[in-house]
Amino acid sequence: MMISSRDTKKLQAILDRIADTMSTASERGRVANYIPELANVSNDHFGLAVVPVDGETLISGDADILFSIQSISKVFTLTLALEKYGSTIWDRVGREPSGDPFNSIVQLELEHGVPRNPFINAGAIVVADLLVEGRSPQQAIAEILSFCHGLAADAEIGIDQDVARSEERTGFRNVALASFMRAEDNIRSPVGHPLDVYFHHCAIAMSCRQLATAGRYLAASGDVHGDATKRISMACVRRINAVMMTCGHYDASGEFAFRVGLPGKSGIGGGILGIVPGVASIAAWSPGLNVKGSSVLASRAFEELAKATGWSVFAAPRRS
Amino acid sequence: MMISSRDTKKLQAILDRIADTMSTASERGRVANYIPELANVSNDHFGLAVVPVDGETLISGDADILFSIQSISKVFTLTLALEKYGSTIWDRVGREPSGDPFNSIVQLELEHGVPRNPFINAGAIVVADLLVEGRSPQQAIAEILSFCHGLAADAEIGIDQDVARSEERTGFRNVALASFMRAEDNIRSPVGHPLDVYFHHCAIAMSCRQLATAGRYLAASGDVHGDATKRISMACVRRINAVMMTCGHYDASGEFAFRVGLPGKSGIGGGILGIVPGVASIAAWSPGLNVKGSSVLASRAFEELAKATGWSVFAAPRRS
Amino acid sequence: MMISSRDTKKLQAILDRIADTMSTASERGRVANYIPELANVSNDHFGLAVVPVDGETLISGDADILFSIQSISKVFTLTLALEKYGSTIWDRVGREPSGDPFNSIVQLELEHGVPRNPFINAGAIVVADLLVEGRSPQQAIAEILSFCHGLAADAEIGIDQDVARSEERTGFRNVALASFMRAEDNIRSPVGHPLDVYFHHCAIAMSCRQLATAGRYLAASGDVHGDATKRISMACVRRINAVMMTCGHYDASGEFAFRVGLPGKSGIGGGILGIVPGVASIAAWSPGLNVKGSSVLASRAFEELAKATGWSVFAAPRRS
Amino acid sequence: MMISSRDTKKLQAILDRIADTMSTASERGRVANYIPELANVSNDHFGLAVVPVDGETLISGDADILFSIQSISKVFTLTLALEKYGSTIWDRVGREPSGDPFNSIVQLELEHGVPRNPFINAGAIVVADLLVEGRSPQQAIAEILSFCHGLAADAEIGIDQDVARSEERTGFRNVALASFMRAEDNIRSPVGHPLDVYFHHCAIAMSCRQLATAGRYLAASGDVHGDATKRISMACVRRINAVMMTCGHYDASGEFAFRVGLPGKSGIGGGILGIVPGVASIAAWSPGLNVKGSSVLASRAFEELAKATGWSVFAAPRRS
Repeated sequence: MMISSRDTKKLQAILDRIADTMSTASERGRVANYIPELANVSNDHFGLAVVPVDGETLISGDADILFSIQSISKVFTLTLALEKYGSTIWDRVGREPSGDPFNSIVQLELEHGVPRNPFINAGAIVVADLLVEGRSPQQAIAEILSFCHGLAADAEIGIDQDVARSEERTGFRNVALASFMRAEDNIRSPVGHPLDVYFHHCAIAMSCRQLATAGRYLAASGDVHGDATKRISMACVRRINAVMMTCGHYDASGEFAFRVGLPGKSGIGGGILGIVPGVASIAAWSPGLNVKGSSVLASRAFEELAKATGWSVFAAPRRS
Repeated sequence: MMISSRDTKKLQAILDRIADTMSTASERGRVANYIPELANVSNDHFGLAVVPVDGETLISGDADILFSIQSISKVFTLTLALEKYGSTIWDRVGREPSGDPFNSIVQLELEHGVPRNPFINAGAIVVADLLVEGRSPQQAIAEILSFCHGLAADAEIGIDQDVARSEERTGFRNVALASFMRAEDNIRSPVGHPLDVYFHHCAIAMSCRQLATAGRYLAASGDVHGDATKRISMACVRRINAVMMTCGHYDASGEFAFRVGLPGKSGIGGGILGIVPGVASIAAWSPGLNVKGSSVLASRAFEELAKATGWSVFAAPRRS
Repeated sequence: MMISSRDTKKLQAILDRIADTMSTASERGRVANYIPELANVSNDHFGLAVVPVDGETLISGDADILFSIQSISKVFTLTLALEKYGSTIWDRVGREPSGDPFNSIVQLELEHGVPRNPFINAGAIVVADLLVEGRSPQQAIAEILSFCHGLAADAEIGIDQDVARSEERTGFRNVALASFMRAEDNIRSPVGHPLDVYFHHCAIAMSCRQLATAGRYLAASGDVHGDATKRISMACVRRINAVMMTCGHYDASGEFAFRVGLPGKSGIGGGILGIVPGVASIAAWSPGLNVKGSSVLASRAFEELAKATGWSVFAAPRRS
Repeated sequence: MMISSRDTKKLQAILDRIADTMSTASERGRVANYIPELANVSNDHFGLAVVPVDGETLISGDADILFSIQSISKVFTLTLALEKYGSTIWDRVGREPSGDPFNSIVQLELEHGVPRNPFINAGAIVVADLLVEGRSPQQAIAEILSFCHGLAADAEIGIDQDVARSEERTGFRNVALASFMRAEDNIRSPVGHPLDVYFHHCAIAMSCRQLATAGRYLAASGDVHGDATKRISMACVRRINAVMMTCGHYDASGEFAFRVGLPGKSGIGGGILGIVPGVASIAAWSPGLNVKGSSVLASRAFEELAKATGWSVFAAPRRS
């Protein structure tokens, strides 16, 4: 049986049970340590938010604490680029699972500087290059932030400048990726520009509540606020969900599809955004990561939520 | 808007329009030529069948002509293995997209003989090894065929022995894969046994009508005949759909997810099986292939059908 | 200063000192254990033999005990193939270092079934295929053995049939390589034929004395017995020495060139054949291997011998 | 028969014949075109110089015209680093053939930022990092230039600043390599410093006469000027010759060893430095390259010179 997102009471009970379980879980993974700003976050946190397509937002745990959304921001920059430039972006980035870790440079060499998909680092840097072309990094960053404000209906959302600066100081591997693609002519601006944009959008901070709200359009056929005042095209929504399903968790994407059965995108800040098309947008967060770079408890929360609610794109109830 | 699978009239019109378009399409791809039995099939064929979860079967074009289902058979052997051995099979085969062509041996070396997923050749040979362990190839082949008879409710379905023999004579690359995995101890029977099983189940011949009927359980939450007399477990169904979504078309799986948005599995005989969970099982067939080994017209038919019906797991209508 | 190979007394003292050191060395590596026939050899052995271009043979330690020459046999099959077929063999096998382990299949896939060089397993199987074409494996094996008899002037040299049978029973990775090349049409006989030849020539047993004698032509400009009665062409000699230098120790070839400075070929039976052009042929043997598959003590013996004698192709004394 | 380097008359005739043949050769390859300064060099040039260990320098063709020595400079920076830091440098760079093109980043990823050898770009950038550590790029460049002045006994040798600037502007792939190694902590200075050094030493301009003179120590057991006033250690000389033999021509190193049989190092300016240990240092130059990035005519000149003189480390005359 599938639980309706409008069955608020039952759903809230499920969320609370999950948050409860996670608060005492002993297997919590390891907090990302490559920059101090991420390493210093306490691994005790767990938050969960569900924003139904129609119905009120439900939360449990630390759903109002800000965290670094990191790679989840790639969903929003891809949406922005698709809305601005349409399908021409696919000339410069693919949409196949890579089968490799998020920052691999091997495939980039074999495939002449065209990244496999927009969710691995190289692909997201190409998207950043599209967004920065013909303007300054500051302008592009401002546009991305403003786009996120619109999606989340919250102009308070900002960038953690300490995180951005730290990434800039330590992100040599991303410099390598960008320089390599510049050599292959798939980066068009000075290498520092898309990197500047990339490091900043990865440093956007949101709470679970804000993140699930921002992702609502992916569950709601593109209707951003639920009142048809702002729309992302349906074609864009379908395609982003598809890329999230096949590529959203690097070389663990198959595992998430297998265990959870929903389009999702993880970030090494410990967040995961997941989409139940037609039903709800979901955000979970806990800082500790597994070896593939996904949050241990946020992954587990999605698995338990999917099991308890029956939400899965692979096992829809009869609806015809 | 999403079309209901019970709106038979509208749906039949869509199928007929697609079959009509395909019959005159000039870009038809190239028929697989590695064995004479496949090379001799006329590239003029196109067939399409839709088996709704509840409702009558609809067909158009050459939907009753037999073709070699080839790799689509891997869906059925995986189901059989999962039903028999449960999740222990995942110790011997992964469930991540490979990012490589169907018969690549590179990843197999890097990952010590454990194939990335059960739909690349190496993975399907491991599944065949599971099914043949402790018995003769003939017994395992008979069991697989009998399982397909049950799924399709048609005991006429058989193996094209000429195709099986030809594959056996020319399948050196599959021998290489199996020998390599034997060296890594991930094939347990004599190398010839799983290969014998594999070559035979790939040579099963079905029509679009039979294939879509056989795949019905994947759309119907495991209910094989629609009358609850025979069930595949729901967990199995969800997981097979997930693996079809992320790995069903080798290194073009992302493309199918992106363009069509449904779990699917292609075979180099030109067939594609696609699933709309809760709605219908679909089979399309046309022998000409693209460079990735998928049928040009069957792929296109799925794309047009998805567009015309709104069927996609990534853009469900409100249903809560 | 370079020691002359005719300074017998000084040279014998050097050999004895080396053999003495090796007899008590504690770091001896691990005996190959993939077949029982190799695993059962005692790791206490160490033998060394030097056959000067002109002058008497010098030995020390276990230089008359038979061991399995394994991959060193590839030097002799390559010589035989070059003498029979000339440079046409380079259409089917390259002569570049592979940068990969001896039995890697990765490069073979990327380069469409043409092995990088004749000393990795795949390349040696291609050479075996050349030698077996148009005849039975038994005939090809007999020809190789007879060729070795001629080189070593010793018709007693034979094949350890237990080793050959064991390799045949367990050599699945070599079956994989051969099947893969068959699929790419770079094996022309039935796959079992070159493998049969390969498994048998790798099972040839020689002592250090016999092996250094058999390799003498590579030091002596092709003059097999030192009396001009039997000649290998100078072009062949130069080229085999070159391939030994760049490819003789798999992915540790650079290391041997760097430390020893002589063309050499190792085998996992623990033997190494080394050549000082114009001076001497050298064989060392000790069963324990390092992680790259080369004998720990035989490698060390070559390094110490090179240091003590000044023998190196990279630091010749003034001679013009 | 081997020709003595003191048989000046015979040797001069050989050089003249080779220069003559090359002047009219129609198959001349393509001049490197990635920077205008290299692309504008006429492909008509051919120069050859032989500097014997004892005896007068012989030249033919355009042996006094300056060209960009490019990667040949890596021989001199490696020598300088070895003399300064000894064998500790091998902790940061290997000495195995790479089996890959000169600027490949694949292997670097698989082997965690430690380049295979000091002659691929990544390895040379590590050597530059060693030389620049604790000082400014200008100081390191001055030291390298001064070292070359000493080797060639010619303080006129300089850097083509236009070439250096062009490389800096376009060398994104080298930036990628350096950034990648910085991420793996195998570059210790700010990424721009070793790159600055690297781009400048690759832009050193020499004539064939100067280059062969500068390489003389590699043939003369480390005796730089032939009068024992300046010495490179013998261990260093042997080892550099070994690395030149196995790694001097990227993924065509085996080919040069096979065809020529001498340690050598090529540059994409069209130059090749080759060493006959104990006999002579040789430089050849012609701007047109083959697909592997080696000069077509300089390679051919070495092959013909080796054939005419008998010079090869793999086929020494009897000398004991």
